[in-house]
Amino acid sequence: MVYDLIIIGAGPAGLTAGIYAGRKKINAIILTEKIGGQALAYTIENYPGAPKISGLELVNKAKKQVEEYGVAIKEGIIITAIKKKDGGFLVETENGSFEAKAIIIATGKIPRKLDVPGAKEFEGKGVSFCTICDAPLFSGKSVAIVGGGNAALISAMDLMPYAEKIYVLQHRERFIGDEILQEKLRKSQKVELITNAETSEIKGKEFVEKIIYEDLASGEKKELAVGGVFVNIGYIPNTSFVKNFLKLNEQSEIIIDPWTNETSVKGIFAAGDATNIPYKQYIVASGEGAKAALSAYHYICNC
Amino acid sequence: MVYDLIIIGAGPAGLTAGIYAGRKKINAIILTEKIGGQALAYTIENYPGAPKISGLELVNKAKKQVEEYGVAIKEGIIITAIKKKDGGFLVETENGSFEAKAIIIATGKIPRKLDVPGAKEFEGKGVSFCTICDAPLFSGKSVAIVGGGNAALISAMDLMPYAEKIYVLQHRERFIGDEILQEKLRKSQKVELITNAETSEIKGKEFVEKIIYEDLASGEKKELAVGGVFVNIGYIPNTSFVKNFLKLNEQSEIIIDPWTNETSVKGIFAAGDATNIPYKQYIVASGEGAKAALSAYHYICNC
Repeated sequence: MVYDLIIIGAGPAGLTAGIYAGRKKINAIILTEKIGGQALAYTIENYPGAPKISGLELVNKAKKQVEEYGVAIKEGIIITAIKKKDGGFLVETENGSFEAKAIIIATGKIPRKLDVPGAKEFEGKGVSFCTICDAPLFSGKSVAIVGGGNAALISAMDLMPYAEKIYVLQHRERFIGDEILQEKLRKSQKVELITNAETSEIKGKEFVEKIIYEDLASGEKKELAVGGVFVNIGYIPNTSFVKNFLKLNEQSEIIIDPWTNETSVKGIFAAGDATNIPYKQYIVASGEGAKAALSAYHYICNC
Repeated sequence: MVYDLIIIGAGPAGLTAGIYAGRKKINAIILTEKIGGQALAYTIENYPGAPKISGLELVNKAKKQVEEYGVAIKEGIIITAIKKKDGGFLVETENGSFEAKAIIIATGKIPRKLDVPGAKEFEGKGVSFCTICDAPLFSGKSVAIVGGGNAALISAMDLMPYAEKIYVLQHRERFIGDEILQEKLRKSQKVELITNAETSEIKGKEFVEKIIYEDLASGEKKELAVGGVFVNIGYIPNTSFVKNFLKLNEQSEIIIDPWTNETSVKGIFAAGDATNIPYKQYIVASGEGAKAALSAYHYICNC
C-alpha cells in the first residue's frame, strides 16, 4: 500500500499535521516512536486557549482529534532511513517499510546530556531530564537544576511543591528564561538562582549526593549537597536518519523553506523543533505542523 | 508613557503575542478595534487541543491568559497611522496617540464584499458575512452561500441546523475547501453544491428574495429563490493604515521575514492574516503571534 502521506513523529507538529491531513481526507498515517515527545515533560502555561495544561493532556486531546479524522497513529516505530522510490518515498524502519507520495518529518528533539564525570553514571540514579516524570521522587530533598533557559526555570517551578531546596546553575552571566518565571522563583525561599556556575562533576555512592561547579567569576570550585540533578541544557534534533538525505544546518536541524516547510528534497516537508525555525515553542510547532500538512496536500494533489 | 511594545489587533495572532509579551514581563499593551476579529464568525474544529470550539470561546480563553499576565487590552481603538519617533514609534489613533519602542501588527483581514447589483443594498437585509452571528435568523428559509473555500463550506455547516435549503455557489470548476466538509455537505438532502456558478445579482423588495447566477459551463442565467445570501469570497487585509509606511505585496499583505516576523521597518513586526504567510489558519496565526512577540522581545532588550 502506498500512502499519500507519512507523518513521522507525534509531538505538537506531527499531531497538528495529522489533524490537517485528516480533514483533507488524504490517506495518511503517523509513524512514531512515542506519542507526545518532550511535550510530556512539562506543564504548559503559554498555549493560547488552554491555560495551565499538562503536556500529556494537551497531546492526548490532539491525538483524539487526529484519530477522529481517520488518521492512524502507529507507535513503537524506529525509522532507520528514507529513500526515493517510484516518484515517491520508502520509509525504512526497524519494523518493516512503508511507502508514500509525500513525507512530513516532525521528530522533534531529545535533551542534550551533560558531559561531565558522573552525569552518565548516575542517570536514573538521581540524574533526570524530566521534572514532570520524576519531581515527586525528590520530596524533601535538595536538588540542582543545570541550565538557564525556560526549560530549567519550568523544572524549578515543577519541583517547588516537592523539593526542600532547589539550586539552578546557569553557566552564563544571566538567566535567559521568561522574566515572569525568574521573578516567581526569586520570591521563593527554597530557590537559589546561581549564575556563572559551570557544572564540573556529579558525585555519590549509589545515588547522587553532590554536584560540583566552578564559579566562573572567582575561579573557585564549589559543591552543593543534593539528592538529584535535573539537566536542562538544550536539545539535539532527532534527524540522524536523514543526515545523508536532507540538508541539515550545523545544529543538525533540517533546513526548511519557511513559507512552505519543504526541505531540500521535493515532496519531503518538515515541521517543528527538528527544523531550523528559531523558536521552539509548542504553539509555534503546532502552526508549523499545519503549514507542512497544507503544503504536502498541495504537493500530493498537484492543486 | 512609552511602552516597550504595542500590539495592534486582538485576534489569534495578537492575543498570542500578548501572552508571550506578558510572560517576558515587558511593558506591553494591545490596542484593537474589537477582540477576536473574524475568528468570532466560526466554529473551529481544527485547533489542536480544543476539538469543536466556538471562535468566541477560544478567543475569550486566550484573552483571559493575556490579562492574567498583566497586558491590558484597549478596545474601540481605530489606528490611523504609525510614525517613527525618537528611535521608537508613534501610533496615531482616533482616540489619541501612543508611543512604543516596538510594534506588532496583527490586524487580520475583513471579508471581501461581493461586487454585484444588490449586494451592498441588501447588506443587513439578508446579505451577511457571518453565519455564527446570523444563521438563526434564517430558520426554515432557503439561503445561498457564495464561495468555494473552507469559509463557504463551514458557513453551510453552520446553517444546516437552521436553513431549509442551502445552495453553495462556487464560480470555479471545483470546491477547494476541506474534502471532509464537502463530503459531509454532499450527504445532506438540504445542501446543493453548485460549481461554475458566477453570481451576477441579488434581488428583492425590502429583503433578499433571490440570487441570480450565470452557469459558466452553459452560459445560462439561473435564479434561486432565497431569503438570505452569505458571502465568503475571501478577505482584504487590514493594512491601509501602514500602506505608505511598510512594504506590502499586491494583495496588500504586509511582507515579513518569515523567520523573525520583522517587516520592512526595523522594530515593527507583523503576524497572522494581515501578513504574506500563505496559510490563513487560526493555529498558524497563533504560532506567528508567538514568533513575533519573541522577536520583538529580543529587539527591545537587544539580547
